[in-house]
Amino acid sequence: MREVLYTQRVAFGDCDPARIVWFPNFFRWIDSASRHFFVECGVPPWHETEQTLGIIGTPLVDTHARFVKSASYGDELTIHTTIPEWRTKSFVQRYRVMRGADLIMECDEVRIFAARSTDDPKGIRAVPIPASIRALCA
Amino acid sequence: MREVLYTQRVAFGDCDPARIVWFPNFFRWIDSASRHFFVECGVPPWHETEQTLGIIGTPLVDTHARFVKSASYGDELTIHTTIPEWRTKSFVQRYRVMRGADLIMECDEVRIFAARSTDDPKGIRAVPIPASIRALCA
Amino acid sequence: MREVLYTQRVAFGDCDPARIVWFPNFFRWIDSASRHFFVECGVPPWHETEQTLGIIGTPLVDTHARFVKSASYGDELTIHTTIPEWRTKSFVQRYRVMRGADLIMECDEVRIFAARSTDDPKGIRAVPIPASIRALCA
Amino acid sequence: MREVLYTQRVAFGDCDPARIVWFPNFFRWIDSASRHFFVECGVPPWHETEQTLGIIGTPLVDTHARFVKSASYGDELTIHTTIPEWRTKSFVQRYRVMRGADLIMECDEVRIFAARSTDDPKGIRAVPIPASIRALCA
Repeated sequence: MREVLYTQRVAFGDCDPARIVWFPNFFRWIDSASRHFFVECGVPPWHETEQTLGIIGTPLVDTHARFVKSASYGDELTIHTTIPEWRTKSFVQRYRVMRGADLIMECDEVRIFAARSTDDPKGIRAVPIPASIRALCA
Repeated sequence: MREVLYTQRVAFGDCDPARIVWFPNFFRWIDSASRHFFVECGVPPWHETEQTLGIIGTPLVDTHARFVKSASYGDELTIHTTIPEWRTKSFVQRYRVMRGADLIMECDEVRIFAARSTDDPKGIRAVPIPASIRALCA
Repeated sequence: MREVLYTQRVAFGDCDPARIVWFPNFFRWIDSASRHFFVECGVPPWHETEQTLGIIGTPLVDTHARFVKSASYGDELTIHTTIPEWRTKSFVQRYRVMRGADLIMECDEVRIFAARSTDDPKGIRAVPIPASIRALCA
Repeated sequence: MREVLYTQRVAFGDCDPARIVWFPNFFRWIDSASRHFFVECGVPPWHETEQTLGIIGTPLVDTHARFVKSASYGDELTIHTTIPEWRTKSFVQRYRVMRGADLIMECDEVRIFAARSTDDPKGIRAVPIPASIRALCA
């Protein structure tokens, strides 16, 4: 199973008045790690896949995160990303956010490959995962 | 069980190139709704509780969110917040993010009441939930 | 000259370890106030104007902000927005962020009405301000 | 005059529905570049300087930015940071955000070294720039 690493420095402004990372920022970084995983696997940018496959991104369906230790500014975090499970129209993407040997938080997501809805201009819908993309990520 | 409502407009910049809310923003709003819940119950700001009770906030331990429908800019969302469970050193806070009658996402969090760690200047630790705070939220 | 008000509560997570608003958040709120100004004037959402006028938004060209007093969580801010100057392909949008009678910050922006570039799929270009939009904002 | 570089990848979620960087994100990155400048010069973290010098950070007084070209996700930006001017209680910090040889945006800030206000627990005040810090940045 392929594992891709993504590093993230924690900035002063990522922290709240309690001087620890304000937790929504972890989800910003995880989303970047998710995208970075596909980039490292050779999947093109979404504005290209929109033209070729109709795919505009991999929105979240479900996420479950556990916060183990706090982090603060000056820390350098490494996010370890894998895809432990592929389903027909969705997949599980897993993240372990580490500071050196310390686990800071871990997260399991269910994501879909999304195309624009055919009836609602603002809506989206799940499409079967293209074999070409899955092959790139193996 | 007390329910507190919090309204949030979706801004253009809250949305990503797929034209839907970039999901970390939901966690920003949920965190505001969490704090708003305590404010509505009469709990003082954390910089006051830090002086009186040593409590600097209610950091997350665990969060589980399910994304049901997408939202976009111009939408007005209402977040319905409750605390369905109190434990000794933690509690469950529940959110239902609605657009009118439509459920957009729902989220169950486990949070603690945190004080500064006594040995590590950057660390935090869970403290027993003060009876005075729990009484305010009943 | 039309003035439109926009209110913004300051959340815990909007503040940094110095316990004051982390300044990029002011620009998030100002951008919402900018959009809110046009909404109040009756200008349609950008995904509609993209179809009708080719206009995808009003990106910034230049911004100049002055920070007068700090703000913190719990504060309620009111942003007073005007357009003191219209030029051929740009306009000046002005913001005064107030907490009651206190001026917190003020900002003058130059923005354009943008369409997608005809040669670069990721680029944008300025277009003459549509008379229909200017009339709505008078 | 010392120049410090800071690199920043543009993420999908940093871009808005017009598919370009949502401008408040530039200020997030500039603030990181500002802090990074001091770190590279050997200035300790603010929670240490708070103990030793009473200094809690370098909040903004004034910022003036010019946006030259748009950037989008996948871009790698390099921020070139200098301090072209030191005054008694403030300094000018300058940023040039580049994508390769292309100037994306440039920004001149006036910042102060801040300590907590002695009368207002939530307020801050400017202090004379410590000679020790200025020497580190030369």
